[in-house]
Amino acid sequence: MFNKITIIGCGLIGSSLLRAIDKKKLSKEINIFDKSKEASIFIKNNFSAKVFNDISESVKDSDLVIISSPLSSYKEILLSIKSNLKKDVILTDTGSVKKEINKIISNLNLEHVHWISSHPIAGTEFSGPESGFAELFDNRWCILSTENQKGGKEMDRLKSFWEAIGSKVKLMTFEDHDYVLSLTSHLPHAIAYSIVRTVVNNDNKFKDDVVQYSASGLRDFTRIAASDPTMWRDIFIDNSENILKVLNSFSKNLEEITKAIQSKNGEKLNNIFSSTRKLRKDIIKAGQETDKPNFGRK
Amino acid sequence: MFNKITIIGCGLIGSSLLRAIDKKKLSKEINIFDKSKEASIFIKNNFSAKVFNDISESVKDSDLVIISSPLSSYKEILLSIKSNLKKDVILTDTGSVKKEINKIISNLNLEHVHWISSHPIAGTEFSGPESGFAELFDNRWCILSTENQKGGKEMDRLKSFWEAIGSKVKLMTFEDHDYVLSLTSHLPHAIAYSIVRTVVNNDNKFKDDVVQYSASGLRDFTRIAASDPTMWRDIFIDNSENILKVLNSFSKNLEEITKAIQSKNGEKLNNIFSSTRKLRKDIIKAGQETDKPNFGRK
Repeated sequence: MFNKITIIGCGLIGSSLLRAIDKKKLSKEINIFDKSKEASIFIKNNFSAKVFNDISESVKDSDLVIISSPLSSYKEILLSIKSNLKKDVILTDTGSVKKEINKIISNLNLEHVHWISSHPIAGTEFSGPESGFAELFDNRWCILSTENQKGGKEMDRLKSFWEAIGSKVKLMTFEDHDYVLSLTSHLPHAIAYSIVRTVVNNDNKFKDDVVQYSASGLRDFTRIAASDPTMWRDIFIDNSENILKVLNSFSKNLEEITKAIQSKNGEKLNNIFSSTRKLRKDIIKAGQETDKPNFGRK
Repeated sequence: MFNKITIIGCGLIGSSLLRAIDKKKLSKEINIFDKSKEASIFIKNNFSAKVFNDISESVKDSDLVIISSPLSSYKEILLSIKSNLKKDVILTDTGSVKKEINKIISNLNLEHVHWISSHPIAGTEFSGPESGFAELFDNRWCILSTENQKGGKEMDRLKSFWEAIGSKVKLMTFEDHDYVLSLTSHLPHAIAYSIVRTVVNNDNKFKDDVVQYSASGLRDFTRIAASDPTMWRDIFIDNSENILKVLNSFSKNLEEITKAIQSKNGEKLNNIFSSTRKLRKDIIKAGQETDKPNFGRK
């Protein structure tokens, strides 16, 4: 499918891409750059990809360059690689926020570079190249965005690439992407971090009890509150406007529940609690969740 | 282990107990009362237990009576059964809040009745007798509480019963139970309902997107926001004091994150997000959670 693909940043997502490209033979050659020595050694020891110490060398002659590193590293990366990018290269990423990144790239005025952003909606609570696996993207969505949503053969090529990886592809504007993800992903993460912090900062007397009885609800929240801190710091900064907006809506909804509890308004509570059951059914029907009790935990 | 056990309320928990008692042969006879006709028919068709239309008849000669119905139904149930309870019966329940229930039972001045409350920390997002299964309590905690935490042979018997069911047993005061569970269970549920409601009440334009991209975080919250509304209404009313207290702590923690986002304080966000990873590791170590990525979802 490609002659040479470069992956910059080889953590959970980058290394899962490497595994999937390898397994499905989507490129004759794969170049890898990761600023971490441990990650580079791990890749060298476990894959046939070529690992580079010099980031600008790693992109030479590549047809597809994929940035899979924290959002705050993009600018430096782009400045380091821009002069070595092949003419008509497809440049993409896997970041969780798009509008700010697109601004950075537009300001660089890259010539003969086809910038199309990718966001594979896939991941786990684990980080690092040893956590990756080739099936991570199977049957998951990948959102592609470009300036003016223009298609063209590069868009078709990138779409085919993600489909070959196992994903379903959808196009979206940078703005819509950032708003939808603030609801489905960034808000839940902000809340999960807050709730786990509330429990962690609690009275020492009950520390062990909280761990023991976590199966009563808390443990579900600890999963996403265990996600990579650097990645999430960058997301909250880059998408702050949308996140603050949805946090505000959330606080109003929480206030409504709090008031119903204060006034012991059973009917109101019942209505609130009944209104939230359908969404899960819709998500299961859309193939985005298991229908097994307790997530099918073993 | 017992000659006769009565289960009042045969939903997810009651019917799972029925299955476990049946499977492990913990009683010669099992009596069932459920006010729902559908539930009663389901039990009659699928189990050898005796199903009663008259609640007061169902407890006659029982050595162990287990109330597994919503908290708000306890008072009426107790008034209906009190005159038919066998001398020296063990009376227990499976409710999620204890202090208010204990008040109700103390005020009834039941004579020759050994009241020991049980709270099996087990459940799923599904309701009704068809959702139950015998293994629900395996390796889960069950918290027992009595007035003055006095032991005695009835406590030993109830403890052995839960252990035979598969649970690990711990004693706790009514007050400590209600506080710990407000943190580990009631707060997470209040938050999950709020977040799902925030998303559900959102702009219609993005309804389908929210479902499609829910794997980016939201879907984890929809599980507990799909729990039984009546049960949760009762919990929030009975444990309102503790819940309002922990909701207040939560709001302060969320405010801290909100301020860090507003000021784009990356260091602060990084510190917050790093402080929440350990709890999950502790919970996994305590055998209360799977260590598989994404809860081991298939």
